[in-house]
Amino acid sequence: MTDMNVKQNDFSGTDTSSPFSPQLSARMKRPDFQGDFTGMILSAAEKDDVISFAGGLPNPVSFPIQEFREAADRVLSENGAKALQYGDAMGYEPLREYLAERYRKQGIPVSSKEILITSGSQQALQLIGAAFLDDGSPILLEDPSYLAALQLFHYYAPSIHTVPLSEDGADRTEFARIIKEENPRFFYTVPNFQNPTGLTYSKQARMEIASILRGTNTLLIEDNPYGDLRFSGNAPISFASLLGTQCILLGSFSKTVSPGMRIGWLVCREKALLKRLLSYKQSCDIHSSLFCQMILHEYLSSHDLDTHITKITALYKQKAQWMISCMERFFPDGIHFTRPEGGMSLWVTLPDGMTAVDLADAALEKGVAIVAGDPFYEKRRKVSSFRLNYSNSSDAEIEQGIRILGDCIRKIMAH
Amino acid sequence: MTDMNVKQNDFSGTDTSSPFSPQLSARMKRPDFQGDFTGMILSAAEKDDVISFAGGLPNPVSFPIQEFREAADRVLSENGAKALQYGDAMGYEPLREYLAERYRKQGIPVSSKEILITSGSQQALQLIGAAFLDDGSPILLEDPSYLAALQLFHYYAPSIHTVPLSEDGADRTEFARIIKEENPRFFYTVPNFQNPTGLTYSKQARMEIASILRGTNTLLIEDNPYGDLRFSGNAPISFASLLGTQCILLGSFSKTVSPGMRIGWLVCREKALLKRLLSYKQSCDIHSSLFCQMILHEYLSSHDLDTHITKITALYKQKAQWMISCMERFFPDGIHFTRPEGGMSLWVTLPDGMTAVDLADAALEKGVAIVAGDPFYEKRRKVSSFRLNYSNSSDAEIEQGIRILGDCIRKIMAH
Repeated sequence: MTDMNVKQNDFSGTDTSSPFSPQLSARMKRPDFQGDFTGMILSAAEKDDVISFAGGLPNPVSFPIQEFREAADRVLSENGAKALQYGDAMGYEPLREYLAERYRKQGIPVSSKEILITSGSQQALQLIGAAFLDDGSPILLEDPSYLAALQLFHYYAPSIHTVPLSEDGADRTEFARIIKEENPRFFYTVPNFQNPTGLTYSKQARMEIASILRGTNTLLIEDNPYGDLRFSGNAPISFASLLGTQCILLGSFSKTVSPGMRIGWLVCREKALLKRLLSYKQSCDIHSSLFCQMILHEYLSSHDLDTHITKITALYKQKAQWMISCMERFFPDGIHFTRPEGGMSLWVTLPDGMTAVDLADAALEKGVAIVAGDPFYEKRRKVSSFRLNYSNSSDAEIEQGIRILGDCIRKIMAH
Repeated sequence: MTDMNVKQNDFSGTDTSSPFSPQLSARMKRPDFQGDFTGMILSAAEKDDVISFAGGLPNPVSFPIQEFREAADRVLSENGAKALQYGDAMGYEPLREYLAERYRKQGIPVSSKEILITSGSQQALQLIGAAFLDDGSPILLEDPSYLAALQLFHYYAPSIHTVPLSEDGADRTEFARIIKEENPRFFYTVPNFQNPTGLTYSKQARMEIASILRGTNTLLIEDNPYGDLRFSGNAPISFASLLGTQCILLGSFSKTVSPGMRIGWLVCREKALLKRLLSYKQSCDIHSSLFCQMILHEYLSSHDLDTHITKITALYKQKAQWMISCMERFFPDGIHFTRPEGGMSLWVTLPDGMTAVDLADAALEKGVAIVAGDPFYEKRRKVSSFRLNYSNSSDAEIEQGIRILGDCIRKIMAH
């Protein structure tokens, strides 16, 4: 197809004494926040000879593969020309209506007009970063917080404040102080089975935080990818219910149906803001895959999502309990760990003086991958905590992996 | 699922005398560049009683629906757990290898390691904006240019310079002057069947532009969504061949297979730069739908893409010729229009003194939608040119629509 009269490999522009040097933006010249950690997590998860508690992968057993075959076939045979064509930037209306109805059943009054479909909830974070952050803008995050949110927000060079997270949620005294003194543009929280800690905000904590926020101009970003994965206890009220237009709620099908589809959403009840988010979303990728949205909707229309979720939560409950029982058997005294009521990971804290990075290095040599807590913190390094993911390992791997971790901890303690 | 002890509709935060007011970023407070035009284009394209030459939609006849049914079924039955799981941020390796091989056959030496899969080529533009633009950074665009690229770049508040586009490409004298005086971070071009004009750069123009750029630090962004849709003439050499690492090449399956999948890519041969683009891409949406990538690859592995493209180009050639013959029949003298050798649209210029916006308004009243040239220009308004898309209308619609446009033009001329 190409004009062959011109030498194809003529890269003369790059072979001179002054080679081409791209003129990068300031954001691209800054070092990548903890980028190496993410690479490590993903590569460890891919090695066959490593037992990985590092990745945040759902268990493939939870994917409705056969149901998707049928849904894909129905969408393409009945509505193929639409599924393969350009679509609406807001997302596929029947899918948005499905989500709105699901929220209404949970007592959260949402209309489909308030739901923007995104390419995973990661893209929702990207839209939020663009919508609210200038250089130096104050924002408030949990300490520790979700690694990929920290990485993303760093591209906008905001002024990141953090509030310590304890068993029942963010520390309210510190929270109130920062809200008052810094007037952050938003507070970003994962209130249910937080990544990395597995912790859930109590009802009391939610009400106190909502109360502190009312009357301020700080938005609450409620990231809720794991909320449906509750395997014990009752769900406390959503921030979206407590704060109305002062809350943007994020959701995702990645943990309940399939991450490979890359379909998430955001709920924004502030009309003018949603219009701007939509416009920016359109500039980012026109719209999220309509093909994926229609297949998802077809699947959801002909199957009960909650029945499917029950299978996942039963699996994860068993995995979590098994991992905890193994830790009780194989870990020495003095090790603390969270006992999540749902989600995919838990958080282990070593005794004072021990650093999780040392343990992660020692464990990887023995074929077990964990994520040391460091990249989940904005500033703290050489912390004593680490994340264990239990969703995607077999019982035998969990037993062997936890035994090896226990051995490594003992060795480090003995030094 | 929610704690019902708390009033669900308690939006008290928004009902007080000082309602919540989100603290937007500077980029979000700026007016949306020509956002209303895009909305108009999309809504006109959706109305059943309007003949729309406004949208840039491929003809659904070109979608391989039956082949996708088979591909989706094979992927899900043989490899479902992988297709529905998280994937690699770079994209599905076999798809990248397919693309690299296709470039090599066209004489462009590309390895799969240099290809990053994106959520449509619109996302590639988003990554490029983030990678190169600070407030006030000089960049160079064609005048007119692709509307969605203009919109996107505006979010970064760069200093936009433009170079007039004529029949054989960008004006070289002006191009050389701006490169020398402004040292733009990049020159963004759609060299084949440009949107909106349908124009293609000659071989001579490409060589002169490459020659002007060599030794400078201005990157050339070669956006090539339509290159495969050539229905007459020969393809001139690609800028990617002429400029090597000084060029980032964008491609897309949207115009040849399906826009609804949202799969495009970028080719970047500068390793360190690609690493940063990858890292940013990962922050944007983790990765593009692996499900879509695997189905696309399955389809491409079992079918010859060029045979499929031949059907599309035959269709678009006939549509373009039919539209041109209708304009020759129904338009008054003094109207100039491009005669594209490929792509999906052509560009009409009214006599001096007439404005395309007036024509667009009059035509829409008579049930025909066109896009006046204004939003494709960075600064010029009330221009005399407009875009006609011929890919997605029936022959009868083209004949009737062009007849109506001809009548409207005559009426405006008579005033």
